[in-house]
Amino acid sequence: MIKIIKIGGNVVDNPVLLQEFVRDFAAMPGMKVLVHGGGVMASQMQKSMGMAPQMIEGRRVTDEETLKVVTMVYAGWCNKNLVALLQAEGCNAVGLTGADGNVIKARRRAPLYVESIGEEVDYGFVGDVDAGCVNAGFIYTLLERGITPVLCAINHDGEGSLLNTNADTIASSVAVAMANYRYRSPREVCCRCEECTHCSDDGRLTHVTELIYCFEKDGVLHDKDDDSSVISEIDRSMFEDLKSKGIIADGMIPKLANSFKAIESGVSKVKIKHARNLLNETGTTLLK
Amino acid sequence: MIKIIKIGGNVVDNPVLLQEFVRDFAAMPGMKVLVHGGGVMASQMQKSMGMAPQMIEGRRVTDEETLKVVTMVYAGWCNKNLVALLQAEGCNAVGLTGADGNVIKARRRAPLYVESIGEEVDYGFVGDVDAGCVNAGFIYTLLERGITPVLCAINHDGEGSLLNTNADTIASSVAVAMANYRYRSPREVCCRCEECTHCSDDGRLTHVTELIYCFEKDGVLHDKDDDSSVISEIDRSMFEDLKSKGIIADGMIPKLANSFKAIESGVSKVKIKHARNLLNETGTTLLK
Repeated sequence: MIKIIKIGGNVVDNPVLLQEFVRDFAAMPGMKVLVHGGGVMASQMQKSMGMAPQMIEGRRVTDEETLKVVTMVYAGWCNKNLVALLQAEGCNAVGLTGADGNVIKARRRAPLYVESIGEEVDYGFVGDVDAGCVNAGFIYTLLERGITPVLCAINHDGEGSLLNTNADTIASSVAVAMANYRYRSPREVCCRCEECTHCSDDGRLTHVTELIYCFEKDGVLHDKDDDSSVISEIDRSMFEDLKSKGIIADGMIPKLANSFKAIESGVSKVKIKHARNLLNETGTTLLK
Repeated sequence: MIKIIKIGGNVVDNPVLLQEFVRDFAAMPGMKVLVHGGGVMASQMQKSMGMAPQMIEGRRVTDEETLKVVTMVYAGWCNKNLVALLQAEGCNAVGLTGADGNVIKARRRAPLYVESIGEEVDYGFVGDVDAGCVNAGFIYTLLERGITPVLCAINHDGEGSLLNTNADTIASSVAVAMANYRYRSPREVCCRCEECTHCSDDGRLTHVTELIYCFEKDGVLHDKDDDSSVISEIDRSMFEDLKSKGIIADGMIPKLANSFKAIESGVSKVKIKHARNLLNETGTTLLK
C-alpha cells in the first residue's frame, strides 16, 4: 500500500493543526508521500512585498517575480518547515520540487481563453501536470529505502525554468503514477501489506495506492455552511448532479475532478477529509 | 574521487556567472556535491520586507522572521533555481537542506561573548556544524546512483527547528565526512577513478576527496585591490603570518581556517578560485 496525502495551504499555515497533522502522518505505517500547498502564505508574502496577487479562476497568474515568491514560500519555508517537523517525529522525510531528481517535469501552459472573463490569459510560469510527468521510479527508490517524499507545487520544464503548478493535481498525478508503476528489478519487493500481494499481467507487482485529500472541512458538504452535512460516499453521477445544482462549487470542483480521474486510472481509494481526521475513517469516500 | 564545490552568494546572485558555472559544473565528470550560499539575496529580501539585516562578525543574527526569510531564499529560490538549471544541463541534481534525509544535524549555538563588540550575543536560530553532523551514508547513496546533492546553508536541530548555518563550514564538513566515509556493503564500489583504488586499514575503500571554494576573486590575494596578486600555494604558517600582517582579513579568515581544517582531516586537496575557473588549475592551492 502506498498512501498519497495532500494537505492544503490552510493546514500548512495553521501551526496547531499542522503539528497535530504531522504527528499523525509520522505515525502512519508503510509507504507514504506528502503533497502540500501554501497558497495562503504566498499571497501574504506577495502583499508584504508590495505585490498584488492576481488570481483567475482560482489559479495564480505567475510572472517572474511571483514565481520567485511562490518558490520561496512553497519550496523554501513550507516544505522545509514540514520536513524538519517530520524528522522530529521520527519520519525520515525528503522535501522535493519536481526539479529535484527530475521527479516531475511539467508542461508550461500556453495562453488560453478564459470564458468567465471573456479574454485570453497568459498565466506565465504555470505548468500542467499529469501522471505521465511523474518519475515514479525515483519516488519508489526513496520509498523502498524508508524515505518519505514531501512534494510541493513547484515543478520544472526541463529547460531551466521552474513552473508553478496545482498541488491537488500533483497529488492525483503522483497517485496514478504510483498505482501504475511496475517494479523493474528482482531486488524491488512489495511493501508486504496484505493488499499488495497481487501481480499484474507480466508477473511484476503493482502497489495498492490510496489518495487522501486533507483540508479544513470534514469532507464534501451538502451545505457548505453546515459542517455536519458531510456526504459520506459520492460517485461521478452524483458529483455531476450536485455540481449542476451549485451545491459543489469553486475549489471543490477541480479537487473532485482530480479525485475521479485518479480512481478511474488505477488508484484504489480516494478520500476527502479534515486534516485532523487523517487516521480515522470519517470524510467523503469516492466511488468508482 | 568526490569533489565538493562551494559557490558564494555573489555567484548565485549573478545570472551570467551562475549560468557559466552551472555549465562547467554539469560537465565535470564523476561524483560531486555542490554547496551554495545566498547571503546577498537574503539581505536584499529582508530589506524589501522592511527588515534590517543584523550582522555581527560576518554572521547573521537570526530571529524567527529572519529564519523564515533565509530559508525561503536559500532553500527556496537559490537552491531550486540551481537545481532546475543543472537539470537543463543534464546533471541529475537534488537540492537539500540538512533536514532532508537528516543529512546534516546542526547544534544550535548558545549565546556567546563577542570580543569585538564587548558583549554577549544570542545569534538566535543559528547552528554550528562539523564533520560529525554529516550523514555521509545518505550523501553516498545519492552519489552512487548518479545523483548530485545540492546543499544550501539551512540545517535542522532534529527537534523540529531549522537553523541558519555557514555555507563555507558546511562545505568543509561535508568534504571531511566524505573523505573519512568507509563503504559499508559489498554492493558499494569505488568510483573507479585512478586515485580511489587505495584501501583503508580494514580493507574497506575510502574516496579521494577534493574541496574547491569558488567565489568572485581569482584566489587568495597578496593585495586585495590587485586581482593579479594571487598566492598560488599557501601553507598554515604562511596563512598565520599573512593574517597577523592584516593581508588576509575579513571573510577570507574563516574560509582559510575551514580549508586548513579540511586538509588536516583527510581531504586530499583544497583550492580557492574564481567561479569561472572551475575547470582549470588556476587559483590558490592549500598545502598540508
